[in-house]
Amino acid sequence: MKFATLPNGTLDGRLVVVSKDLTKAVDATVIAPNLLSVVQNWQEKAADLQALYDLLNAGKVDAAFDFDPSTCLAPLPRSSQWLDGSAFINHGKLMEEAFNTKPIPDFDTIPVMYQGASDDFQGPTADIPMPSEADGIDFEGEFGVITGPVPMAATLDEAAQGICLLVQINDWSLRSFGPREMATGFGFIQAKPSSSFAPVAVTPDELGDAWKNGRFNLHLNITWNGERFGEPHGSEMNFSFPELIAHAARTRKLNAGCVIGSGTVSNKSRDAGSACIAERRVIEKIDLGEIKTQYMRFGDSVRMQAKFDDGRDGPFGVIEQKVIANK
Amino acid sequence: MKFATLPNGTLDGRLVVVSKDLTKAVDATVIAPNLLSVVQNWQEKAADLQALYDLLNAGKVDAAFDFDPSTCLAPLPRSSQWLDGSAFINHGKLMEEAFNTKPIPDFDTIPVMYQGASDDFQGPTADIPMPSEADGIDFEGEFGVITGPVPMAATLDEAAQGICLLVQINDWSLRSFGPREMATGFGFIQAKPSSSFAPVAVTPDELGDAWKNGRFNLHLNITWNGERFGEPHGSEMNFSFPELIAHAARTRKLNAGCVIGSGTVSNKSRDAGSACIAERRVIEKIDLGEIKTQYMRFGDSVRMQAKFDDGRDGPFGVIEQKVIANK
Repeated sequence: MKFATLPNGTLDGRLVVVSKDLTKAVDATVIAPNLLSVVQNWQEKAADLQALYDLLNAGKVDAAFDFDPSTCLAPLPRSSQWLDGSAFINHGKLMEEAFNTKPIPDFDTIPVMYQGASDDFQGPTADIPMPSEADGIDFEGEFGVITGPVPMAATLDEAAQGICLLVQINDWSLRSFGPREMATGFGFIQAKPSSSFAPVAVTPDELGDAWKNGRFNLHLNITWNGERFGEPHGSEMNFSFPELIAHAARTRKLNAGCVIGSGTVSNKSRDAGSACIAERRVIEKIDLGEIKTQYMRFGDSVRMQAKFDDGRDGPFGVIEQKVIANK
Repeated sequence: MKFATLPNGTLDGRLVVVSKDLTKAVDATVIAPNLLSVVQNWQEKAADLQALYDLLNAGKVDAAFDFDPSTCLAPLPRSSQWLDGSAFINHGKLMEEAFNTKPIPDFDTIPVMYQGASDDFQGPTADIPMPSEADGIDFEGEFGVITGPVPMAATLDEAAQGICLLVQINDWSLRSFGPREMATGFGFIQAKPSSSFAPVAVTPDELGDAWKNGRFNLHLNITWNGERFGEPHGSEMNFSFPELIAHAARTRKLNAGCVIGSGTVSNKSRDAGSACIAERRVIEKIDLGEIKTQYMRFGDSVRMQAKFDDGRDGPFGVIEQKVIANK
C-alpha cells in the first residue's frame, strides 16, 4: 500500500491512499483520519485500506483524483519521535575524518543514533528556510521506517514486527554547528533543522525483493542543481532497521509513529558518489588533496529519488526542494 | 492559571482547569479539548480559561470536582519536542568529574542541550518500569517550560514571549549508558527513558516574584524512599529559559508544545543536597573519598515537590513515583 498526507488545517493532515503507479489518489479519511492513526491501529485498519488500494489500482474508485506530490505534506507532518541512526559505517568513518572528531567507540558493533526534531517535518517540495549560508547548509539522503508500537527491550523479531511503513528522507544538516555539538556529547540541536520527506510512505511489500535483511536494496539517486551527485545503494547499511529499532527501544517503549532513519546512505565504492556534501568534501580532501565543493547557497535545489536496481523508479515519489533565506 | 490533563482515551488527554489551592478541578474541554490545543491557540483561549479559573477559585462552578493528582497524566502526555538543557553548570561540572568525561567546550557561554523522547511522558504517580537494576537507575529533578510557537532565529524577547506554561519534571536517567552515549557525540537514547511530570502546569504569574530573570526561584524538595535528599534552588541556573529557547530555535522554528527543561537543579552549597543520585555520588567521592550511595532498586520511590522560599508548597503538585521491573 501507498499513503500520502494532504493539508486540512490539522497538525496531522488528512490521509489519502495513492495508486501503485503514483498517478491517482483517493481520500481515506472514512477509514482513518490521518497516517498517525493508521500506524496506531494497524491491525484494525490494514484490511480496509488494502481493499481501497486494490480498488484504486483497478480503476474502480469514482472519487479518485490525480495525485499531485507538490500538494503533499510529509507523510507524518509531526510525530512524537524522530531517531536518526548513522548505520552506514562508511559514511561515519569519512565524517570523522571530515570533521576531525574522535573515533566513536564501538561504532562497528553498537548503532549510533541521535534524537531529532519531529515537530515540523517538511513536505517533498517545500522551500527550506535557513538562517545563513555561512552555516554549512547540507542535505543528507536517507531511508527510514515508521513504526507501530514497540515494547521496551524489544527483541529483534519484535522490532521487525514493529515496522509499518517505509519512507525516504532528506535530513537537512548545518555543518558549522556539528563538531561543537558533537563535542558536548549531548547530540545535535542547531546542526539539525527539520527533516523533509518524500511524498509517499509505503508498506514493505511495495519494495518486493528490494526489502531484504531489514534494508532498502535501492539506489538513492541525488542531483544538486540538476547535476548528478550520487546514487549510493541501501544494501551496504551496516545495521538493519530491526537492529536500529531494538537499540532505540532498549530502555523505553516506542509509541506508534516513531520515525527511524538510516543515516546518510553511503557506499565504499567511490563510483557511487555521495548522499551529502560533507562526504563528498572529505573524499575530495583524501583523493585530491583539497576540498573543491562548497556547501549550498540560497536558491540551490536538491532532488532525491529512489531507484530499483533495474532502473525503475522507487515507490516514494521525489524530494525536490530549494533552500531559501529565512525571513 | 493552573491546568492538568486527565485520561480520555486520546493521545493528548482532556483538559481540566485546577483551582489555585489544587483542591478542585473543572472540565475545560468546551474551551479547548486538551492542553496542546491551549498552547497552540493561546491568544484565543487565554481569556476564556482565565474566566473559568476565576469562577472555580471563587467556588462558583457547580461542575467542579475534587482534584485527584493520582488520576492525572502528564500535562502534555505527548509532544513533538522535548529538549533538556544542562543549565546548572555546577551540576555539569560535577557530572564531568563523576563520569570522567572530557570538559564540554564553551560550557559557560553556550547552553548544552539534548533532544529526548517526547512520545510517552509519564504522569506524576505512574509506576516507572525499567529493564534492569544494573543500569544505574537515577532520578533528575528539574524545572521546565512549555512554549507556544517560537520563530526560527528568535531573539531573547521572542523566546521569552514564547513561554506559555511552567512545569516540574523528573528526567529519569540510566547512568550505565551515559558515558558511552556521550562519547558517540550523538547524545542520549538508552540513557534517557521517558520523563515524568508533576500534575499541574501553571502560567508564570502563579509563581509571583519567584518567576524572575527567566528562572524558577523555588526550591525543589526531593526525598528518596521517604528520606530527605536535597532541596536545591532554581535561582542558580546559569542560563535562563529564554536563553535555552533561543538556543533551541537558532536554526529551526519550534511548534507549539515544545517542552524545554532546565537540567538537574543544582547548587554550589553542599547544604542544598542534590536533585539526582549521580551528583550525590560524585560529591561523596570528592568530600569523603568514596562513593557510599548506590542507584535505585526496584520498589524504590522518589518524591519531588517545589517549595517557595517562605516554605509554601509550589504550584505544580507532587511527583511521587515508584520504580518497578519491566515485565
